[in-house]
Formats: sequence, C-alpha cells, structure tokens
Amino acid sequence: MDTQPIVEANAVLATDVYGKSRVRLVRVIRHGDRHDLKEMTVNIRFEGDFESCYRTGDNSRILPTDTMKNTVYALAKDSSVATAELFAQHLVEHFLSNNPQASRVEVSIAEHLWKRIDATTFEQTGAEKRTTAVRADRERTVVTSGIEDLVILKTTGSAFEGYIKDSLTTLPETNDRILATAMKASWRYSKAVPYDTIWHGIRRSIVTAFAEHQSLSVQHTLFAIGERVLDTFEEVDEIHLTMPNKHCNLVDLSRFGLENKNEIFVPIDEPHGYIEAKLVRTSAS
Amino acid sequence: MDTQPIVEANAVLATDVYGKSRVRLVRVIRHGDRHDLKEMTVNIRFEGDFESCYRTGDNSRILPTDTMKNTVYALAKDSSVATAELFAQHLVEHFLSNNPQASRVEVSIAEHLWKRIDATTFEQTGAEKRTTAVRADRERTVVTSGIEDLVILKTTGSAFEGYIKDSLTTLPETNDRILATAMKASWRYSKAVPYDTIWHGIRRSIVTAFAEHQSLSVQHTLFAIGERVLDTFEEVDEIHLTMPNKHCNLVDLSRFGLENKNEIFVPIDEPHGYIEAKLVRTSAS
Amino acid sequence: MDTQPIVEANAVLATDVYGKSRVRLVRVIRHGDRHDLKEMTVNIRFEGDFESCYRTGDNSRILPTDTMKNTVYALAKDSSVATAELFAQHLVEHFLSNNPQASRVEVSIAEHLWKRIDATTFEQTGAEKRTTAVRADRERTVVTSGIEDLVILKTTGSAFEGYIKDSLTTLPETNDRILATAMKASWRYSKAVPYDTIWHGIRRSIVTAFAEHQSLSVQHTLFAIGERVLDTFEEVDEIHLTMPNKHCNLVDLSRFGLENKNEIFVPIDEPHGYIEAKLVRTSAS
Amino acid sequence: MDTQPIVEANAVLATDVYGKSRVRLVRVIRHGDRHDLKEMTVNIRFEGDFESCYRTGDNSRILPTDTMKNTVYALAKDSSVATAELFAQHLVEHFLSNNPQASRVEVSIAEHLWKRIDATTFEQTGAEKRTTAVRADRERTVVTSGIEDLVILKTTGSAFEGYIKDSLTTLPETNDRILATAMKASWRYSKAVPYDTIWHGIRRSIVTAFAEHQSLSVQHTLFAIGERVLDTFEEVDEIHLTMPNKHCNLVDLSRFGLENKNEIFVPIDEPHGYIEAKLVRTSAS
Repeated sequence: MDTQPIVEANAVLATDVYGKSRVRLVRVIRHGDRHDLKEMTVNIRFEGDFESCYRTGDNSRILPTDTMKNTVYALAKDSSVATAELFAQHLVEHFLSNNPQASRVEVSIAEHLWKRIDATTFEQTGAEKRTTAVRADRERTVVTSGIEDLVILKTTGSAFEGYIKDSLTTLPETNDRILATAMKASWRYSKAVPYDTIWHGIRRSIVTAFAEHQSLSVQHTLFAIGERVLDTFEEVDEIHLTMPNKHCNLVDLSRFGLENKNEIFVPIDEPHGYIEAKLVRTSAS
Repeated sequence: MDTQPIVEANAVLATDVYGKSRVRLVRVIRHGDRHDLKEMTVNIRFEGDFESCYRTGDNSRILPTDTMKNTVYALAKDSSVATAELFAQHLVEHFLSNNPQASRVEVSIAEHLWKRIDATTFEQTGAEKRTTAVRADRERTVVTSGIEDLVILKTTGSAFEGYIKDSLTTLPETNDRILATAMKASWRYSKAVPYDTIWHGIRRSIVTAFAEHQSLSVQHTLFAIGERVLDTFEEVDEIHLTMPNKHCNLVDLSRFGLENKNEIFVPIDEPHGYIEAKLVRTSAS
Repeated sequence: MDTQPIVEANAVLATDVYGKSRVRLVRVIRHGDRHDLKEMTVNIRFEGDFESCYRTGDNSRILPTDTMKNTVYALAKDSSVATAELFAQHLVEHFLSNNPQASRVEVSIAEHLWKRIDATTFEQTGAEKRTTAVRADRERTVVTSGIEDLVILKTTGSAFEGYIKDSLTTLPETNDRILATAMKASWRYSKAVPYDTIWHGIRRSIVTAFAEHQSLSVQHTLFAIGERVLDTFEEVDEIHLTMPNKHCNLVDLSRFGLENKNEIFVPIDEPHGYIEAKLVRTSAS
Repeated sequence: MDTQPIVEANAVLATDVYGKSRVRLVRVIRHGDRHDLKEMTVNIRFEGDFESCYRTGDNSRILPTDTMKNTVYALAKDSSVATAELFAQHLVEHFLSNNPQASRVEVSIAEHLWKRIDATTFEQTGAEKRTTAVRADRERTVVTSGIEDLVILKTTGSAFEGYIKDSLTTLPETNDRILATAMKASWRYSKAVPYDTIWHGIRRSIVTAFAEHQSLSVQHTLFAIGERVLDTFEEVDEIHLTMPNKHCNLVDLSRFGLENKNEIFVPIDEPHGYIEAKLVRTSAS
C-alpha cells in the first residue's frame, strides 16, 4: 500500500482540545495547632482558535502546557481556595482572563482523600476520589462534583429475575445475590453551594440509598440512588451514575459434597456488567 | 444534612446505556500446517427503551449481560469472521435482530497483537492494541478502526518555540527536543474495505508521517499525521487523534561540570501534555 | 549464535517451588441480624521432591494447582476459620497431611478490608491490605502477619540533615519536610495469639509511632516503629519493615515572586527512596 | 491494647538495605547518520554499617538517595557504557570506591526496548524488558542478566495428564492445551562476555526451546528451557526461571449445541499457576 497522497488534502480541523494532565499537588495549610492536608491531581483543557498552530506550526496563540502547570502551583499558594471546586473556578477564571484565544476552559480535579490521625499526621483512605470539573466560556460556568471508585457491596437485598431468556442464556435467576460496584458519580449544581458540606451530604445519600434499596437489578438501584439525590438536594439538577456490576460468582461446592448457602463466592474483575445513566430534574431538562 | 426527600422527585431518565465489558477471547484457527491466533477483548453496549427497568425493576426487556458474553463465545465459533471489524458487525447484527427493545448497539473490540514465532507458537508484541468499534441502529452502521498505545519517539526533528510568554513561563524555547507519545487513533470508514490490509496501511502511514515530519509542536505533527491519512486513504472520511506529550526532560548536568548535548533525559509520566483533535475530509463534513 | 548444545547438559535442579496464585474469595457469614464479610486473595506454594516432573514430565507426584484452588473454596466453607491466620493454617495442614511428596507448604493471604455501613452493606477501605503467611514443614510452623500499602504522611516532625556531601550532591538539608510512605510490614509470632486483636494493636502501634516520632531520617523512624512493636508485643519476635520514601518536593515559587513556606509540594511516584530493615528481639536471634 | 512499652527493647537490627528505586533515564547517542536510543530504569541498593543511622538518627554515614540518582545521570554521560551490564558495573564500582561505609552494592537495571523505525525514530516494543543486576562487595562481583514479561504462547504441543486425583479434583486431563506464560528469566555469568550478543542468543534459545518442546507440564518445559540455555552457553552457570501458567480455559459451547474443537478459549489473569525453579550447571554448584 503506497502511503503517498493520492487525493488533494482538504482536511478540516473539526474539533480540538489541548491542555495538561496529571498535575499533582500536595497543599499543607499550617494552622497554629494543627495542619490541614489536601492532595489533588489537576487536568486542564483549552478549546479555542488554534487552527494556525495545527496547520502551520504557528505557536503564537499557544500557552504552553508547562505554563498551565506553573499556574496551578502559583495559584495554589492563595490560601483562600481550600476547596477543589473553588480552586478549579479560580484557575478557570485566571485562564479565561489571560487567554483571549481560548473560548472555553475546563479544569477538573481529583482529590485523593486523607484521614486525620493527629494534628499533623494523616492516612490515605483508599482508592475513592472526590472529583470536580469546572467548565466555562465567557457566558456561563458549569460546576460539577462527583466521586470515583466508591467500592460498595451488599450481601443481600439484591435479586435478578424475569429477564429475557434465549438459546444462549445460562445465567440462573436469583432472588438473593451479592451486589457490588465501583461507583462513579457526578452531579451538576444549579447554583453556588457550600461545596464541602453538600458533597458529604450527597455521598451519604448515595451510600444510604444503595444500602436500603431492595434491588431488582443494577439499573433499578442506580435509578433509586439518582432519584434520592435529586429529591434530597435542590441544588443538584442532574446526576450521572456509572455502576459496573462487579460480579461475585457463587462457587459450586456440590461437586465436593458440600452445600453453598450463599456463603462462598469468587469475585471477578472481568468480564463485568456496565450500567450507566443520567437522571435530570424535570424542571431542569 | 437530612437525606430524606424534601421535594417531589420528578427525576427523568435522560440517557442510559448498559452492556458487558471486558469479555476476553482467544481464538485458534487450525489450518493443516499452521495455526492462526487472535486475542480480543470485547465490550458491548445497548441503548433503547429500558426505562421500566430503571423505574420499577421490570426486567422483561433486559437481555442479561451474561447472555451477551455467551453470545460472543458462540458467534466466535463461526470461522468466517476472522477480522475484528467483521466479528463486531456480526455481533451487532445478531443483537439488533434478536432484541427489538434495543434501538442502538455498539460492539467495540481491542485486539491484542501476537507475532508468529513458528507454525504454532506466538509472542505478544506489547501494549499496542488494534481497535474497532461498530455502532448501528436499524438505519445505519458506522465502522471505525484504530490503534491504542502506539508508543513512538523521535530524537530530533522536533522544536517548540514562539509560544506565549507570561509571568509564569519557565519553559525554555528549543529547536531540538525529543518528541514522544502514546498515540490513540481512530478513523471512520465511508464504506466497507478490506479491513486488515487497510489497517496495516494506515498504521504505516501514521508512523511514517510521525517520523518524517519537521515538528513545530505536537499539534503541528498531529495535523500532519491526520492529513496524511486522509490524503492517502479515500476510504477514510474522518480521523480522531490523541497524542499525549510524554515529556523527556533534559537533565541539567552543568551542576556537575558536565555538558549535556541533548544526550541524557528523564522521561516522566506525569504531568504530561494532552493534545486531541479530529480531522474530517472536506467533502465529508 | 548457534543454539544447539555444545556441552554435555548436567543441569541440576537447585531449587523449585510451585503453586497457585491469586485465588480470590469472598466469604459471607450469615448471622441472624447481620452479615460479616471477608475478601481474601490466597497464594499457595509447595516445595518437595518434584524432580521427576521437571526432568521427564512424570506428573504422578503433582497435585494440580487447579485442585489447590478447589481446596481453598472447599475449606472456606468451614465457618470456624474466620481469621486469615487460622484459615491459612488450616490449608497448610490439609496440604501437608494429604501430600507426602510436599516437604514444605506456604499459604499466604492478602485480606482486602471492608468497613461496615449497615448490617449487610460494606464499603471497601482502600489499598491497605492485611496479610498473613503460614509456612510449615512437618517439624515446625511459622506464622507471620502484616500490612501492605499503609499510606501515611506527616507534615512536620521530619528532618534530613548531616548526611554525606560530595560533588554530586544537590539535595538541600532540611529540618522540616513532609515524610510520606506506603509501608509494608510483617512480623513473626513466637506463639499462637488472638490474631485479630493483636493485629489491630500492632497496626495502632505502628501508626502511633510514626505520628509521634521526631524523625531524623526514614531509617530513624523505621527503627523507632520496629522497636515500639517489639517493646509492646511480647508475642512478636521479629519485624520486617519496608518504607519507600514517597517524596513530596517543595515547589520553587520564588520564580513567580511568591514565597513557599512549606505549603505547596509536588508528590512524585518515581524515583523514590527505598528503606528496608528487619529488627529482631535480642532473645529471639 | 496498650501501646506503651511493656518490656525492655533490646531490638537488634538484623538486616537492612537502602537505596533509590525507579531512576528513569533516556539516553540518546548521536552518531553522524543516525541516533541510538536507550531507555532504562535503575535501582540502587546499599548494604553496610548503617546502624547508628537507624538507632540515633546519625546521618554522617548516609549517602542520600538523591545523590545516588544524580550519580546515575552524571555517569550516564560517559558514552563508553552503552550496555546496561557495563553501566551497572560502572555505577557499582563508583559507589564502592567512594563509600567505604557500604560493604555491598547492587545496581539493577530494567531496559525498556525500542525498535528502530528510521535513523532517528523509534517504536516501543511492548512490555518485555531486558534486565541486569550487578552485585558486588570488595571481593567479588556477580553479573546476572535476564528478561521480564516475555509473553509467549503455543497452541499445541502441550499436555497435562497423569497427575494426582483426589476428592477435590475437577480438572480434566488433556493431551492438547494452550500453554501461555509471561516468563521471567535471569541467568548468572561465570565470566565477562559480550553482553549484547549473548543476551540475544539466550533469548533466542529460550523462545526456540519453548516452541519446540513437547510439553508434559509447565515444569517439564521450564526444565527443558533451562537445560537448553546451560547446554548452549558455557558462560552461564545458573539460570532462574519463573513461568506463571496463564490459563486459557476452553469454553463449553456444547450448552449451545456447538462443538468446541480447541478453538475458543477464555484467557484469565487470575488465578494462575506459578512455577519457579533454578537450574545450575553441575560443575558450578
């Protein structure tokens, strides 16, 4: 196959985005009697009029991604922005003010959570991350917050029955299975809120809804969780939930003359079910 | 914060999708004098009218994801589908034919590449994956193919100068740097093609364009690669490229009385630049 | 290079070990009013007289690793073994009793920790794992327990000064730095103990010693932690600690006219310092 | 459980080691008409008389791990050390010469492999790494080389029969299965050799022995590979091989009225068999 041009180019730049990924930051706030600790990973994305850079290598409209990184560290110094949502807004405003060539900027932050041990010692609390994304153009700012890798499991209160059977069905129906997921959730705020307080409230709402729900399917539980958040938090007008079904398969012990009364399971990473949906408040749609 | 409902729900299911992820498959085709080997990981996604499942736990319209998995294995048995693109189409057609409740089905496949050692022995050739995604409703089928984790590097022929400087700039301009990326590419076909032949041709085109380009920025090189593919392959009407800038930082050896003539670098994984764009053929837009 | 034999073989099997890795298990214990949950990953290793298998392919002395896996599930059914240490011992005894060809068996278990949300709902608490390894021959059984991926950080109380300087030194001395590690610890018991209670006590001891120590180096803190455990727990006669120094580098903000009073740091994964030592009780050595 | 000391300490530092991990390096050698490229990750370990550091925080005998890192970059500048084995030896000699407090130094290097595309462009060839470890005290230097993550698979020529059956056996015997592994190999040289040439020869020997062997078990094939290397390369007096059995399970298609003639398999990552052995030359033991 010849790789020389055989037709006239006429390539059009349909969409483009650029920025810096995985800018990591630890921030210590030194109070007299104790320290606070924040660990964040920041991603920055610019959209705008960058076609000349792509076509001709003209960099005169390019803010280097290295400078984006420096900006994260310089602005992190301002101790008034202790909350990821506010820090992301601060960064977005800075970039939009100083870069007329950018029409839209997004800053997303994953906060790695630490638990206090004493006044100046902390313990990382695992894979779960608190997330935020602030997207803005010069007209409008959208703030979303969320959670990633919230791994939760219930040992009962979960059934899966009444589904379609065909010639390739082998899954047995069950009215009592383990339900486990590594949830990803993000929700959009309709207005500025006390972000820390609300985040903790929504997280509690999600976990409680998961625990209390009599689940007939992952979809059923996902909807119950989303509905609970929309019902409880007026400030949220939309919630997006992804709930992989992390299967725990019942081990067949009858081969060994033993009965497995829903006690012994094999958790598997692959394959896994995948359930994703977005719920919006009626008035918000 | 109370987690009891304070307003009437009125939650609307705005979007939803479900399916099976990471269905892994090794397929051996046994010819008389040699075997062929394919390793694939398959993802399946259904969209359609599933609201009753979410709202009330009515599973009567749900094809279990476990059955999706079984379908992959049963259909893989048909030896006429040796190419990932054709196998994905076969699966999509099967699911659409048998599931009127599904309005749209997507099957995406990542093929893990193996190199032949002898007639029946193979060696895995690394992180690079050949990908395809087939998306269809009952009107239209779109076939895309692509590459993930194609890690390429050039030791010269790459500059980055003339960019915006501000008070937070520390990056020095350079007319000779290492350019390295872990490319992700996907392109859309405008018609059915001999998928294996074309894929190899496009891959060669991408690598050659990267090697030959006098790069003024990652964006500049990304555009040259996309343009080369659109110029060379009439069958492609759109190409989407993601090129993280995997930085190799020059080590400052002057502190030790040594000169570093672009010889010794520290490769870093984070942070990294992120450049993504979609190019379309003029006539295709 | 010719790959045909050029000398007489005379290869001797110097050491060998085989077994099954990553046997995953979730166990639900169903009490009347609540469930308990355990998640474990089990590794099994046999040593013994297996030379004929290696030399001639005689499998008559080989217990398949698939059977080892089945044994894990069958024995997990016995609800008297709720603790990883006891379950590992149970497995070791079973294998030694039934496999005269095995001279030594080791079962190691990593327990993934879950926190109770309500009577039947649980939340995974992160990367930290509780570990145990039971090694036995027909004379003697050694039980060790431990922790992996305990990520802890202190924002003050850590210095590093007075070290060797040479022509390649660039690290500045500091009397106040962040100290962070992902600790791996394992300790050997001199006798049977109430394993759950002691494990929690030792974990608390480790974390407290880390928090309280005025650290002059990672080594200094490692020793203080090990000494604390040996001092507090008579049942432990040896402790092995690995403490990677997960650097948090102070960002130079002076380039931007800002002062960084130990507030803004870049955490990096690589490179990292590596400190490992074993402490034994005097009377135990 | 009280965490205050209840017995007199008397903790003894039984073993200790420290150093720097994951020092990453890209080295470009600029010839007139082409460039060569090396990517390495270097680990350094010191053993010696460091007890005062552990006990009292006296750092006067500690070479900072940061300086170890700087040393890697400074010595990498010397273009005479283009081979990982020689570079590791160079580093070990430097550290032993300059650090009388260190009694033993080990430098291990993993080389990430790149394939040439043209004179100055390269493509990463995957997960496989070329490894070396040089360990020395002031009496003796031991050089080992090796491979990690060499993923190889044969679709026939592998059986597993005649093993022990007991009440927990469910594995069926087979005289034709897939054999796949991610091999880790390391071998010790009895003298200095042309390291690049020999490494490629041994790698070829390993792959060829794997391909040609009529395997009766993983152990059987492991021994054949080790024996082949010892037979062919007089310079090697010992070889250590680890061969996880990466299972490809035959899919039961009979449930769907289809016959699976060893064509469709599910590859699984966990659990996996684990086989490890060391072979030594008779005269070397």
